[in-house]
Amino acid sequence: MKVKIINGPNMNLLGLREREIYGGSTLKEINQTLEKKAREMGVLVDFFQSNSEGEIIDEIQGCIGQFDGIIINPGAYTHYSIAIRDALEAVKLPVIEVHLSNIFAREDFRRITVTGQKAAGIIAGLGETGYWLALLALKDLIEKKEGR
Amino acid sequence: MKVKIINGPNMNLLGLREREIYGGSTLKEINQTLEKKAREMGVLVDFFQSNSEGEIIDEIQGCIGQFDGIIINPGAYTHYSIAIRDALEAVKLPVIEVHLSNIFAREDFRRITVTGQKAAGIIAGLGETGYWLALLALKDLIEKKEGR
Amino acid sequence: MKVKIINGPNMNLLGLREREIYGGSTLKEINQTLEKKAREMGVLVDFFQSNSEGEIIDEIQGCIGQFDGIIINPGAYTHYSIAIRDALEAVKLPVIEVHLSNIFAREDFRRITVTGQKAAGIIAGLGETGYWLALLALKDLIEKKEGR
Amino acid sequence: MKVKIINGPNMNLLGLREREIYGGSTLKEINQTLEKKAREMGVLVDFFQSNSEGEIIDEIQGCIGQFDGIIINPGAYTHYSIAIRDALEAVKLPVIEVHLSNIFAREDFRRITVTGQKAAGIIAGLGETGYWLALLALKDLIEKKEGR
Amino acid sequence: MKVKIINGPNMNLLGLREREIYGGSTLKEINQTLEKKAREMGVLVDFFQSNSEGEIIDEIQGCIGQFDGIIINPGAYTHYSIAIRDALEAVKLPVIEVHLSNIFAREDFRRITVTGQKAAGIIAGLGETGYWLALLALKDLIEKKEGR
Amino acid sequence: MKVKIINGPNMNLLGLREREIYGGSTLKEINQTLEKKAREMGVLVDFFQSNSEGEIIDEIQGCIGQFDGIIINPGAYTHYSIAIRDALEAVKLPVIEVHLSNIFAREDFRRITVTGQKAAGIIAGLGETGYWLALLALKDLIEKKEGR
Amino acid sequence: MKVKIINGPNMNLLGLREREIYGGSTLKEINQTLEKKAREMGVLVDFFQSNSEGEIIDEIQGCIGQFDGIIINPGAYTHYSIAIRDALEAVKLPVIEVHLSNIFAREDFRRITVTGQKAAGIIAGLGETGYWLALLALKDLIEKKEGR
Amino acid sequence: MKVKIINGPNMNLLGLREREIYGGSTLKEINQTLEKKAREMGVLVDFFQSNSEGEIIDEIQGCIGQFDGIIINPGAYTHYSIAIRDALEAVKLPVIEVHLSNIFAREDFRRITVTGQKAAGIIAGLGETGYWLALLALKDLIEKKEGR
Amino acid sequence: MKVKIINGPNMNLLGLREREIYGGSTLKEINQTLEKKAREMGVLVDFFQSNSEGEIIDEIQGCIGQFDGIIINPGAYTHYSIAIRDALEAVKLPVIEVHLSNIFAREDFRRITVTGQKAAGIIAGLGETGYWLALLALKDLIEKKEGR
Amino acid sequence: MKVKIINGPNMNLLGLREREIYGGSTLKEINQTLEKKAREMGVLVDFFQSNSEGEIIDEIQGCIGQFDGIIINPGAYTHYSIAIRDALEAVKLPVIEVHLSNIFAREDFRRITVTGQKAAGIIAGLGETGYWLALLALKDLIEKKEGR
Amino acid sequence: MKVKIINGPNMNLLGLREREIYGGSTLKEINQTLEKKAREMGVLVDFFQSNSEGEIIDEIQGCIGQFDGIIINPGAYTHYSIAIRDALEAVKLPVIEVHLSNIFAREDFRRITVTGQKAAGIIAGLGETGYWLALLALKDLIEKKEGR
Amino acid sequence: MKVKIINGPNMNLLGLREREIYGGSTLKEINQTLEKKAREMGVLVDFFQSNSEGEIIDEIQGCIGQFDGIIINPGAYTHYSIAIRDALEAVKLPVIEVHLSNIFAREDFRRITVTGQKAAGIIAGLGETGYWLALLALKDLIEKKEGR
Repeated sequence: MKVKIINGPNMNLLGLREREIYGGSTLKEINQTLEKKAREMGVLVDFFQSNSEGEIIDEIQGCIGQFDGIIINPGAYTHYSIAIRDALEAVKLPVIEVHLSNIFAREDFRRITVTGQKAAGIIAGLGETGYWLALLALKDLIEKKEGR
Repeated sequence: MKVKIINGPNMNLLGLREREIYGGSTLKEINQTLEKKAREMGVLVDFFQSNSEGEIIDEIQGCIGQFDGIIINPGAYTHYSIAIRDALEAVKLPVIEVHLSNIFAREDFRRITVTGQKAAGIIAGLGETGYWLALLALKDLIEKKEGR
Repeated sequence: MKVKIINGPNMNLLGLREREIYGGSTLKEINQTLEKKAREMGVLVDFFQSNSEGEIIDEIQGCIGQFDGIIINPGAYTHYSIAIRDALEAVKLPVIEVHLSNIFAREDFRRITVTGQKAAGIIAGLGETGYWLALLALKDLIEKKEGR
Repeated sequence: MKVKIINGPNMNLLGLREREIYGGSTLKEINQTLEKKAREMGVLVDFFQSNSEGEIIDEIQGCIGQFDGIIINPGAYTHYSIAIRDALEAVKLPVIEVHLSNIFAREDFRRITVTGQKAAGIIAGLGETGYWLALLALKDLIEKKEGR
Repeated sequence: MKVKIINGPNMNLLGLREREIYGGSTLKEINQTLEKKAREMGVLVDFFQSNSEGEIIDEIQGCIGQFDGIIINPGAYTHYSIAIRDALEAVKLPVIEVHLSNIFAREDFRRITVTGQKAAGIIAGLGETGYWLALLALKDLIEKKEGR
Repeated sequence: MKVKIINGPNMNLLGLREREIYGGSTLKEINQTLEKKAREMGVLVDFFQSNSEGEIIDEIQGCIGQFDGIIINPGAYTHYSIAIRDALEAVKLPVIEVHLSNIFAREDFRRITVTGQKAAGIIAGLGETGYWLALLALKDLIEKKEGR
Repeated sequence: MKVKIINGPNMNLLGLREREIYGGSTLKEINQTLEKKAREMGVLVDFFQSNSEGEIIDEIQGCIGQFDGIIINPGAYTHYSIAIRDALEAVKLPVIEVHLSNIFAREDFRRITVTGQKAAGIIAGLGETGYWLALLALKDLIEKKEGR
Repeated sequence: MKVKIINGPNMNLLGLREREIYGGSTLKEINQTLEKKAREMGVLVDFFQSNSEGEIIDEIQGCIGQFDGIIINPGAYTHYSIAIRDALEAVKLPVIEVHLSNIFAREDFRRITVTGQKAAGIIAGLGETGYWLALLALKDLIEKKEGR
Repeated sequence: MKVKIINGPNMNLLGLREREIYGGSTLKEINQTLEKKAREMGVLVDFFQSNSEGEIIDEIQGCIGQFDGIIINPGAYTHYSIAIRDALEAVKLPVIEVHLSNIFAREDFRRITVTGQKAAGIIAGLGETGYWLALLALKDLIEKKEGR
Repeated sequence: MKVKIINGPNMNLLGLREREIYGGSTLKEINQTLEKKAREMGVLVDFFQSNSEGEIIDEIQGCIGQFDGIIINPGAYTHYSIAIRDALEAVKLPVIEVHLSNIFAREDFRRITVTGQKAAGIIAGLGETGYWLALLALKDLIEKKEGR
Repeated sequence: MKVKIINGPNMNLLGLREREIYGGSTLKEINQTLEKKAREMGVLVDFFQSNSEGEIIDEIQGCIGQFDGIIINPGAYTHYSIAIRDALEAVKLPVIEVHLSNIFAREDFRRITVTGQKAAGIIAGLGETGYWLALLALKDLIEKKEGR
Repeated sequence: MKVKIINGPNMNLLGLREREIYGGSTLKEINQTLEKKAREMGVLVDFFQSNSEGEIIDEIQGCIGQFDGIIINPGAYTHYSIAIRDALEAVKLPVIEVHLSNIFAREDFRRITVTGQKAAGIIAGLGETGYWLALLALKDLIEKKEGR
């Protein structure tokens, strides 16, 4: 089982700045922890981060035939990228959307998820734990799907 | 560690009707599975379901001093109960909100969570797996809090 | 054929107050008249009134397997109770929504029916006659359904 | 007692097309059934259908002094014809508005009734039965009015 | 100087009904008074009334080359007829819009004039006097225009 | 018969600037013409102009018992001064609101008249002729009122 | 003179939690202080608190013929309970609505009072003093009413 | 293959007025050019123009069984005629909507097409060329449909 | 303890007009009654009324260092004067906003208080009693503040 | 005559997925068909596809002095890219916007075209035929422009 | 070169209160610094401050023929004074609008500038430095204008 | 002191097209002028322009530890790029946003600045002078910051 994990704009700054808010882990450290957990679960994970909407779409499209599911944190694009939404719909893979903070309790413009409307599930507000939960959920979804 | 698990209106019909949509598990069966998983995690869980907004508020208030955290699926009250929201805020316990379906991809009026604005995290769209993930996350939150 | 007739908040004050507006009949008298008409039509009717959203949902759920259809006047809950709406949808029985006044010609906030979106039909503005018409219509609906 | 029954745009296509949705009755057949029921009730009915907003207004105005009440299904004009609304108000006759489908459960733009704000009552979602119920209700209204 | 005076839907009922509100003058009487005043001013007037949006557009178009200006009371069409608005714009004649009542102080939906956006001026709330004032204003406009 | 004529902010610049748009007449010249016409009609007129919302309210209040009616062009205050609106309502005199341009065909924020909701009538778009028409209409209103 | 004092959801937690915000008084202590002041004023007071919308409506209805007026703090129900609003209207008793905080200076959704539209007066932002002021005002209202 | 070509309100003024904007062709000339092109394509075309919403609906209904497709330019009715929309839906023929100007780049109220929601395709902004393109597209659609 | 009492536009007409609505007391009489009550409470009061937004701001600013608190009824300015709001915020004195009528139960545009967002408390709908209650509340607030 | 044909995000997946919806042609096949038709018309075409908003803007800018017109299907960027809109405006070339589906009949957020406001014309809903029609129209536009 | 510098409501309190926010400079000190800088630039400046909308309009009008440009900080009037906006437009002088704070990052109602729509430029968020930058920019604008 | 100057989409076309509107300076010329002024001020400036949202975010992030402040003209991204806004917030450097035109006086969709909510100050409408003023302001901000 192979899972692509995509992080959107400004996620590469995690842990380098605003440590008091988002915790002290860098994206690299988060990914290493996640990779370890994935290995224990028998899941291969592949990481991607970009600040560019276009590159994220390219990467999503590239998952066709290569991955069994996608975990995505689209960052700020969550709120307006119909293009990423369309890409998620087109690839027809199970998708879990993750947000570090509870976006539904923040500014009004962050309470709308355009991309999440094409995700199977959404996990928000649980920090880096959210990625691990998403992996558990995605594994579950893929196995059920294959079981049919 | 003790966790209260609250289910809102119409959740008592789960598995009895519309099995093709929500799966064949009744709320009782979901709870039994969850209790077993909780036991393995060393967590005591206590279940409550009501169709009444007032009773749900009573139950939330009753958690003060009795429970370490709350998992809640407020059902339709999610979208308009400022009173439940205020109760969640008042008890000052960690709360995870769970939804079986991805409410952010349904009708417009279901894309707003009034109650979730007072939850630490939200998990939506992952079916009964969502409760288990919420338990994992809540345990994590409580341990971190106590660790301080 | 058995029909449940549910009246929502403040309906118990009918005929006791504001007689010049709503007519001089109490809810009890309205129900007696309706029961008599129902008997002539060969329909068994059972009445319920509550000011509580939760109790109304309980009652709706209790109709499963016990009644062939529901006539409901959700009173003020018409305009915001997504929870009652979900209950009406879940029980999968034919429902007629009745309003004594023409709610679509009153204040803006009364022109929206949240619950009525899950009713087969809506009758508004015809006073207590509305209940009788609803009974005629519901009998018609049930017979057609059974005829199939 | 004389009642005018007015049907608006596209009602003349009933039963000729989309039989699976609206049932197999043509407007002519609906009217014949209705006329028979009216005769049994001692009510004279007169039918009118037009696709033209102006002709419908002409017809409503023509009811002054000629008819005791109006049953109207304004079709799509329901949602925007302030002109028909004003005509209904001007003639000062009891009016019942009928809709074959439950317009309050359809597209957003169909949930508003501009014309119905000047009707005594509204019946929606009950198919051709709705006309018969409207006739019962209108007879009731006229008799009460005359009784005063 | 020739002026067309167009009255829209339900204006033909003036003075016949609701005399206590709109005064006792029929449209015919209003027109006769206006014609007399026009004759004194050396203006030929021609009257038209219709309940039909299409006929009003036909009549407006027919003014090209035949009349020097238009006085129009579009009745309820004021608030939504983009088609009449476009006709008024196309004929390129000076237009004064008249309303018997002060539409800007009535229901919200009457405070918008779609047609009046293509009128040189608007006179509202002054009863049948409004037509006479419109005639004075229109004569003034036409003479200034010809003077150039 | 005595009439107060009130002009609001920036009206004192009329004819001094933007002559190509508003014509070459200064407010003083407009007033002189109007005074002459008023004298012929047997009406005494008194003029007031201010850029200050408060002074305009003072002046309106001062009309009580001193004047038989008010003609007002509230300028930009038309669109937001609830205070002037309340003053117009309180003095209980017949009021005609005048606008040089057709405000209902300009920017969105100019299509709303807050003050005009308390005027008997509104005349817009007819330039300085509007004041004269307002005087004719006001005289008519006052005479009818006194005739009762 | 008898006055019913109704407190809505989460009011029972006052003084037990968030003492730094709402002050250290429990609802019981507030009520005792109020009862003492009432006794000095010659007013009998009766207290009720519930988290349930339905029970609050029951209680309001129960005031008919038993109490001379109502003081109500509907808590979060203030902002959406049309049902409580209707109950307040139906009982036709003088009502004062009290809020501990200035709800008109808080989140947008708290600036609307649905229930307060049926109150004679509203007192907000003055803490527990507000109840005492409401009692003074209600006494005043009832005496004036009886004086007529 | 037979195609009905319907033009809505004010289209009959094309080429007679505002030649600098819409070009010098009259509707008659546009139709003649189009007829010639149609003949070359082996398509029979039939033209209709009306300013009346009702007549346009009559004409659309009349296409049933007589024509293979419809090209319509509903003019101003595009933006509000739910009745024409319903007629287009009812006839179940392939429809192409044409607009001479790019309505999506004009005033806000012209950027909405109510009727076009029931068209297979929309062509806007290409002047009279648009009709020819619509004919090409419609022929294509009909042939594909018949091919099945 | 010194308190400034500020009344906004049109308050100077109280009791002189519309006595049936607002009662027969003039502002002068209201102030005299209030002054007497204040004297009994050991509070010095100083009155100010103006129709001018600017003068009200001047007066509010003038309270700095001269008064211990402000009671203000901003009249119509309540609903739009951000400038008065900013003045109230800047002086950093305790403020109680009073309204004679229940503004939250009137027209939509009166249900918003811009100025009241900077008041400690709001009292509405209790007539001239409201000023007295405001005085009681303000004295309470000031004493508590000084007590710290 | 040289024409640039730009396709936006996710267009590269055409024909590879969801063949039952969009037909079996890949973007490459669509382009080949179009190139052949273009050659017959004597038009040179050059194709570009990108998922990146920035690259699409680069490409549009690169058309200056190199191409005579642009055909663009901006995909999801249609609905929010003001940046592409500005680029289309800046290059001052004739532009035709093409959409495979009728975007004006889909979800609300797809009914707005931000980019199309700077296109000469829009063709929607006609599948790959739309590109060919756009080419016909664009050739027509360019020839007319050069003819001047 | 002569420049008028106008400050609106509550600006006279600068530096006297809330020094920690707006800095310790009084308006007088700000003006003195600015005057000195202006002198070095060869510009004569004249200062005006008022809390009154009307007086600000008077002052703006008074600039005609007396000043070469205006720098204005309209304070709270920025957000609703159409009257000041009209005055700025009427005088036809170059205007720079200055705000001490970044109003576009504050409360929703402060993100709209009604007056700034008639300014050549806007400078916000740069404290008292903003006035100096405005002077530099205005000098530049005036010289370019005169250079033509 | 080192300052990064970032220009967004379509800025690279400045001076090459639409010279009559934006003036004849190319971005290169603007930058050269600015660099010269910067050198005189003892500030090192570094320029960047891109049409890509992602590259602009990369560049902003790259400023961490390398630059003392940022001047940005995000072009059309100003109005919707939450991603750029988040990047500006994350780098925690002083930012000045510049716009050549007064965006607050243009189309509605351009009056909102999403990115500017994270800028210290905004300068709009002053053409290329705006960049110089931004440099002056930024230098001032940085020196004050360092002074602490």
